[in-house]
Amino acid sequence: MTADISPDSVGIVKPRVQHFAQSLQLESGSELPAFELIYETYGELNRDRSNAVLVCHALSGDHHVAGFHSPEDRKPGWWDNLIGPGKPVDTRRFFVVCPNNLGGCSGSTGPLTANPATGKPYGPDFPLVTVGDWVKSQALLADALDIRCWAVVIGGSLGGMQALQWAIDYPDRVKNAFVIAAASKLSTQNIAFNEVARQAIRSDPDFNNGHYYENGRKPALGLMLARMLGHITYLSDDVLDEKFGRELRHGKIRFGFEDEFQVESYLRYQGRSFVDRFDANSYLLITKVLDYFDPASAAGGNLAEAFKPAQANFYVISFSSDWRFAPPRSREIVRALLEADKNVSYVRIQSTQGHDSFLMPIPHYHQVVRTAMNRIAGTGGF
Amino acid sequence: MTADISPDSVGIVKPRVQHFAQSLQLESGSELPAFELIYETYGELNRDRSNAVLVCHALSGDHHVAGFHSPEDRKPGWWDNLIGPGKPVDTRRFFVVCPNNLGGCSGSTGPLTANPATGKPYGPDFPLVTVGDWVKSQALLADALDIRCWAVVIGGSLGGMQALQWAIDYPDRVKNAFVIAAASKLSTQNIAFNEVARQAIRSDPDFNNGHYYENGRKPALGLMLARMLGHITYLSDDVLDEKFGRELRHGKIRFGFEDEFQVESYLRYQGRSFVDRFDANSYLLITKVLDYFDPASAAGGNLAEAFKPAQANFYVISFSSDWRFAPPRSREIVRALLEADKNVSYVRIQSTQGHDSFLMPIPHYHQVVRTAMNRIAGTGGF
Repeated sequence: MTADISPDSVGIVKPRVQHFAQSLQLESGSELPAFELIYETYGELNRDRSNAVLVCHALSGDHHVAGFHSPEDRKPGWWDNLIGPGKPVDTRRFFVVCPNNLGGCSGSTGPLTANPATGKPYGPDFPLVTVGDWVKSQALLADALDIRCWAVVIGGSLGGMQALQWAIDYPDRVKNAFVIAAASKLSTQNIAFNEVARQAIRSDPDFNNGHYYENGRKPALGLMLARMLGHITYLSDDVLDEKFGRELRHGKIRFGFEDEFQVESYLRYQGRSFVDRFDANSYLLITKVLDYFDPASAAGGNLAEAFKPAQANFYVISFSSDWRFAPPRSREIVRALLEADKNVSYVRIQSTQGHDSFLMPIPHYHQVVRTAMNRIAGTGGF
Repeated sequence: MTADISPDSVGIVKPRVQHFAQSLQLESGSELPAFELIYETYGELNRDRSNAVLVCHALSGDHHVAGFHSPEDRKPGWWDNLIGPGKPVDTRRFFVVCPNNLGGCSGSTGPLTANPATGKPYGPDFPLVTVGDWVKSQALLADALDIRCWAVVIGGSLGGMQALQWAIDYPDRVKNAFVIAAASKLSTQNIAFNEVARQAIRSDPDFNNGHYYENGRKPALGLMLARMLGHITYLSDDVLDEKFGRELRHGKIRFGFEDEFQVESYLRYQGRSFVDRFDANSYLLITKVLDYFDPASAAGGNLAEAFKPAQANFYVISFSSDWRFAPPRSREIVRALLEADKNVSYVRIQSTQGHDSFLMPIPHYHQVVRTAMNRIAGTGGF
């Protein structure tokens, strides 16, 4: 089966790796002596280098946002429906950049990388990072690409948090920030779910305090549980009902513990396939990045105050069925931005797919992004 | 520390055990050769045996509903705030009965019981049961106590499901059914959460396919995870925010995996203490009872049709902040009862405590139960 590479696809793409020889000081006080970011780009940077879009990925995302790595690929990048020639983020006009975040497991420096001090993978010794650290490393990537100012920084979920942090930390380097299906901090319930996921991984006997690479075994059951749980929170109750209802795998109840309901098989499948593509130490690290995010805390708990330095135009988008980062969480951001006298547009999109809506080609949502991006391209003259 | 036995407490109570020598045919097709139910009673059965109230317990409940087992007890039974002399379920007027359900782990026949065929605990060989099986066994207990008809069958959550099933299966043996914080069947999301909990237990290496009693080790980590997850779904996002917010244990972020946020410590504590008092095989069994409950399925999916035989008056109560069995789930029950031309009252109580609200002494809620019980006592002449 070969990829169906249509005219509105960015086509076959190749990741690149940027090496940074300088050390990176992290918020925790730790320091990375050197690091690498793997990233992809689509489209062309224009002459005055003013049409660059930074895409920030969420928990389980990576740098492969659009297109295919080979003609044999069965699936395109994770936001392919949004990004490409003629798509809402139109790569005929914009130059799109997406790195894999530090601490991830898709090619950027993270727990899988060899620790220069030992020659073995960092594993659990990889320092915990923050959204601020990610943004700092992305700014160094922008420097390396000679991009002084992003036309747009865009992301959903944890990606939206990065867009917010960019606007705060580098006010003169972001013209427009798209903050989609995000929140200005996790709720207690969000932290609680993360904690259950972490406990599932860390209590897996194959976790071995994070030093599992040496054993040739990984905490597969724990990571599977974490993903199953995550998945439930990404989808709405309604979409689960629509997709699976109470449908039984074998037409009737069997009074046993093998999967009886279709939703059980679905979750187990999702959990298992995640284990093949994701690293447990990275998962743990990224849930902590989520928990720690709280830009207001640096401004005495006042979110509007935290937004004060920002100069970007903000586009905040939420989804009606998202209960992980529900519309009221987006409205908190909007209220604080207005209080800080910032330029902000807010749209709540009607959807049934829960938090995952931000990944879906929902016509109203895509229209909103398309219109905003066209306006940005128009005022930018590209 | 001794119990503070106030005048509105049922005081020191003692469980009794009823042995049933007859075999019990289960819905699954399996048969229990004999069984026991442990139960407590409060108050006095009146002369015409018409003032009996059956309390049905939920997932982690048991037969110890009110009062204390000894003057040294630090905590009373789980529904002590509702039941006692002068309380909404007034034991000066009503005779209250509550058994531990079959398959439980508090003294009724279940996975911990010796299997007469082997002399060892049933463990995972204990047959899976249903709400219908529970109701059938409770009817046999009523026979043994010479209670022909319950004045009231009352329960919250899974207990409310039993009240519904009673009204359907034994129409002439239930005068009033209180269905509190319940649903006529689990949603797909509910099943999905149960499945994650089951996987957590079953993938614990100490689970040993359910034969863990022999090892002297139990699947403590799995059961702890299941309970932590359950706990999040019992509480509302708001009450978690109120109780813990983003409060840090040590005042600042420590960049590590020890509990940093107060909510993490709370959940771990809840999980650990549950392991000491509950059996993992029982937990698995009871989540299956929940998944299977769907009285409409016996009537071609038509809930109103399923309710047709019922003769009870129904009191349906939901709580505004309950997202596990949210108010719309109660309204489904109410609509079907009305369609079936039954006598039903419905109240949605304003609350912040989520699904756990049904256990809380919320004044409006208790007033509703008190008024209804007084009316029942009045019309019953006791």
